[in-house]
Amino acid sequence: MGTNIPVPATTTTTFSATPQEFGIGARLTLAVMSDNYVAVILAALQEADSTGIEVQTGVVSTYLSGPESELLRYISQVIAGASRTGAHVTATVQFSRGCPGEVTCTLPPTGGLFAEVPMLAPTGVPAVAEWALYPLDDGTSSASADHMRDIYAAIESAKASGLLVHSEHFVTRLEGDLALVLQVIAAGWIMAGRTVPHVATHATISLNSPSMNSNAS
Amino acid sequence: MGTNIPVPATTTTTFSATPQEFGIGARLTLAVMSDNYVAVILAALQEADSTGIEVQTGVVSTYLSGPESELLRYISQVIAGASRTGAHVTATVQFSRGCPGEVTCTLPPTGGLFAEVPMLAPTGVPAVAEWALYPLDDGTSSASADHMRDIYAAIESAKASGLLVHSEHFVTRLEGDLALVLQVIAAGWIMAGRTVPHVATHATISLNSPSMNSNAS
Repeated sequence: MGTNIPVPATTTTTFSATPQEFGIGARLTLAVMSDNYVAVILAALQEADSTGIEVQTGVVSTYLSGPESELLRYISQVIAGASRTGAHVTATVQFSRGCPGEVTCTLPPTGGLFAEVPMLAPTGVPAVAEWALYPLDDGTSSASADHMRDIYAAIESAKASGLLVHSEHFVTRLEGDLALVLQVIAAGWIMAGRTVPHVATHATISLNSPSMNSNAS
Repeated sequence: MGTNIPVPATTTTTFSATPQEFGIGARLTLAVMSDNYVAVILAALQEADSTGIEVQTGVVSTYLSGPESELLRYISQVIAGASRTGAHVTATVQFSRGCPGEVTCTLPPTGGLFAEVPMLAPTGVPAVAEWALYPLDDGTSSASADHMRDIYAAIESAKASGLLVHSEHFVTRLEGDLALVLQVIAAGWIMAGRTVPHVATHATISLNSPSMNSNAS
């Protein structure tokens, strides 16, 4: 895919671990606004390529664990698959890194885990997302923690991606091809994670919304 | 309502502002898995009591601004109203405080804004939520920022509320009456906000799920 997201120079690569050891994963909730939602969701989950990731289905969300590139590919395919039925779909996506374990969270040493920003094939599915990034820096990774600095850097990176980008209360709105929306969300999360050990990001993504062309929120 | 959430002693009350000046608000996305979703969502939004809060409807979510107690009452009524149709509903809720403004975020001085934890009337609607809390402490509010300390305190508080509480990857699962679920989510956010200026919390809430009784994820 031809869109390049500018990648800032990294200064630290102080930690290495497998994605699972580092707690790299995602949660995905797919909502399909149709009487036929069960069949649409099951088909979308079954038809997506889950190679390389662990998938655990729960009541509220599906938990996914694995490398960033595989997580992104699977999530993009699941959401695109459900959207291609033409139904109005909302997807809630959470990515997290640096907090492995269930009951307790063993934070890694200072510095983050270097990962490349994956490239995703375009889906042809237009999406609108509201995105929030949370670099949970306790000041261990540098003399001066500044979570807003990392958030602003991610927004600047989004603006250079080719997506439509609007600042809203609490979130940044991203509009464009679903794959590029997911790629930009993951890029902010991955790049903040190069210096901050524990980083989470949330996005609510709307597809085929009947108010998409009439609302200028 | 009879359930008391233990409230830790607070040490700082260093800042005062209106909810709007302090950026206290929420975003709510309601997904109704029915062909009739537009009518269900519109009725739920119209029938809820929006006294005291600003409501802005967007493509992805509805933005709400106002005091914590009014936000909670409105969100509880909207979700309960949609759920009482019997449809499978998922609600995505984000609460935020301490980051007013759209394009830029002017962080308040050190210390948080004291707010009481509101009590909500039970709805009779059973809910399952996956909840994450993000205290965005840069170390300005104390000598030693420790975001996991605040998260663990919120989880302990949830366990004392009477809800079923389970730790999962990246989230805590809460099960019980929708009103108490929302109250516990808001309590964690409000209590962390007494010492940390900028705090966000996210929850994905599932109601009337067909897999609720068959899945032990």
